[in-house]
Amino acid sequence: MKSRNFIAETRRYRTEMNEKILKSEMPEFKRFFALDTGEYREGELPVLMKELMGLVGSMVLRCNDCIFYHIDRAVVEGASRKQIMEAMNIALVVGGSIVIPHLRYGFEVMDEILQE
Amino acid sequence: MKSRNFIAETRRYRTEMNEKILKSEMPEFKRFFALDTGEYREGELPVLMKELMGLVGSMVLRCNDCIFYHIDRAVVEGASRKQIMEAMNIALVVGGSIVIPHLRYGFEVMDEILQE
Amino acid sequence: MKSRNFIAETRRYRTEMNEKILKSEMPEFKRFFALDTGEYREGELPVLMKELMGLVGSMVLRCNDCIFYHIDRAVVEGASRKQIMEAMNIALVVGGSIVIPHLRYGFEVMDEILQE
Amino acid sequence: MKSRNFIAETRRYRTEMNEKILKSEMPEFKRFFALDTGEYREGELPVLMKELMGLVGSMVLRCNDCIFYHIDRAVVEGASRKQIMEAMNIALVVGGSIVIPHLRYGFEVMDEILQE
Amino acid sequence: MKSRNFIAETRRYRTEMNEKILKSEMPEFKRFFALDTGEYREGELPVLMKELMGLVGSMVLRCNDCIFYHIDRAVVEGASRKQIMEAMNIALVVGGSIVIPHLRYGFEVMDEILQE
Amino acid sequence: MKSRNFIAETRRYRTEMNEKILKSEMPEFKRFFALDTGEYREGELPVLMKELMGLVGSMVLRCNDCIFYHIDRAVVEGASRKQIMEAMNIALVVGGSIVIPHLRYGFEVMDEILQE
Repeated sequence: MKSRNFIAETRRYRTEMNEKILKSEMPEFKRFFALDTGEYREGELPVLMKELMGLVGSMVLRCNDCIFYHIDRAVVEGASRKQIMEAMNIALVVGGSIVIPHLRYGFEVMDEILQE
Repeated sequence: MKSRNFIAETRRYRTEMNEKILKSEMPEFKRFFALDTGEYREGELPVLMKELMGLVGSMVLRCNDCIFYHIDRAVVEGASRKQIMEAMNIALVVGGSIVIPHLRYGFEVMDEILQE
Repeated sequence: MKSRNFIAETRRYRTEMNEKILKSEMPEFKRFFALDTGEYREGELPVLMKELMGLVGSMVLRCNDCIFYHIDRAVVEGASRKQIMEAMNIALVVGGSIVIPHLRYGFEVMDEILQE
Repeated sequence: MKSRNFIAETRRYRTEMNEKILKSEMPEFKRFFALDTGEYREGELPVLMKELMGLVGSMVLRCNDCIFYHIDRAVVEGASRKQIMEAMNIALVVGGSIVIPHLRYGFEVMDEILQE
Repeated sequence: MKSRNFIAETRRYRTEMNEKILKSEMPEFKRFFALDTGEYREGELPVLMKELMGLVGSMVLRCNDCIFYHIDRAVVEGASRKQIMEAMNIALVVGGSIVIPHLRYGFEVMDEILQE
Repeated sequence: MKSRNFIAETRRYRTEMNEKILKSEMPEFKRFFALDTGEYREGELPVLMKELMGLVGSMVLRCNDCIFYHIDRAVVEGASRKQIMEAMNIALVVGGSIVIPHLRYGFEVMDEILQE
């Protein structure tokens, strides 16, 4: 089991490195990051549903950092534990047993963040 | 552009082959298919949102048959063109330009099915 | 359902293009192809089991041409329908519902080749 | 072997569908497509090298439409047959035998386009 | 090189998290895990061969936790070092040089577990 | 942020494990590694461009160890920071936001190695 402050550290590392990337001489990175933020804005679909769609995409592509981010955001948007688990179940069946290690990671992150 | 009846043919092929698989001597296939159907049932998340999550998962994993199926199902559940496009946009940004050919396919399928 | 002679045509296209590649000015391709053939030779594992391992790898990576090839080879090595289906079931659970379209393809190929 | 005009048809389908996507009510798609075009512009790396990098990325991700596009663009930028093959060889070794069907496709496209 | 007890710790973390997942309010997870266990049972293919097929699938999909699990199970089923290496070689050629980091991981795990 | 000597340690682990693999009873591994080294040799494309192609392939396939290796090699071949960033940008747009965690990793590695 990961130590309690892996949540804080994961967030901090992310912020720190993103700043480095955004301050680099490549404005292209900034434009991509803007697109990435924009896609989860309220539209015909509510933000929470979009974040859970991002979670499903992240799990089937098996990207732990992305799983962390979307669970973190979904909780801010009011996601219940059951809603997160239903999204994770879709990812599990779509992506197969290869997703299981990321389900374990998702559970750790979800339980830590919901306790905050 | 694909001929008008590719929608009907894609559905027919799918049904025909699934029957073959489900009638084979492997009950394991039947169990997996049951899980697969079950995951999109109403829960804390509405069916439409689950189908759109399935669509995002299918696009980032670049599976045209799965894209077809989830658009087909989402339209039955009342999805608007804009809602489908917002889900497809999440898949595009998460999965990158490699998703573009599947976005083209998704547009074809969406426009045909919405016209039915 | 595909026409009966897609089996013959798939084999012919494969042979024809491989020759083009092997006759090109890149000896590196020939070396890779030699490695690729070599890996399925008899060793501590029997050839049939190696071909079925290749089939599982091909299905989870969702490559229809590779699925075709390994089913074709496995049948030559004496694979029964049940053995091929058990290998395909492993691929289905490992790779998830995204593998289903390739399971449909695998069934078509398997049934055609076993009938030859 | 594909018919001679698959080159023309692939280009036409691509253009037609891209227009549909760009004229849809989602300006986000237009922004992504702009980023996608921008990334291959001259910078510290020459355009041809960038197109060949796009080709390697497309092959290891096994996207035929993308392979087509980058070979088409690379030839416009003056790529020789040997240069394209060297890039394809990198993709083959990085991505493994699962890339072989896409190598066959790449050869067909390359030979057709170089003959134009 | 990883410390000797990473084997014990990897097993413990896996068991602990799986219990959490199986005790959650989602019976769907339990059903998927049951399918996942079932697929490796004796059938027309021996258990050892099925575990090695799972290993090949795990390596080409580049999932270290899954590689660990299948090597662990294969050794229980009597796999020799050479048999594991032959399966890993298939995965290497199928999946390409991108598999090499997972081959390194597989070697570490294999050597530790065979020494137990 | 990773400690300064993660560069040295990553290199050392790689060398040590590769030796183990190359000394094993499977000459096939040695042959694959030889192919892998050979593909980046000077040809019609310069070595630096080939290494950057390897970097793009590694990023879209999301393999940190491979990213490390190709940045390390590219710097030896004289790559500028801007050239590496342009290659990373291609990988980002091709592979999507799922590549972002690997962009963060790439930045760390690039900055450490360029400081050496």
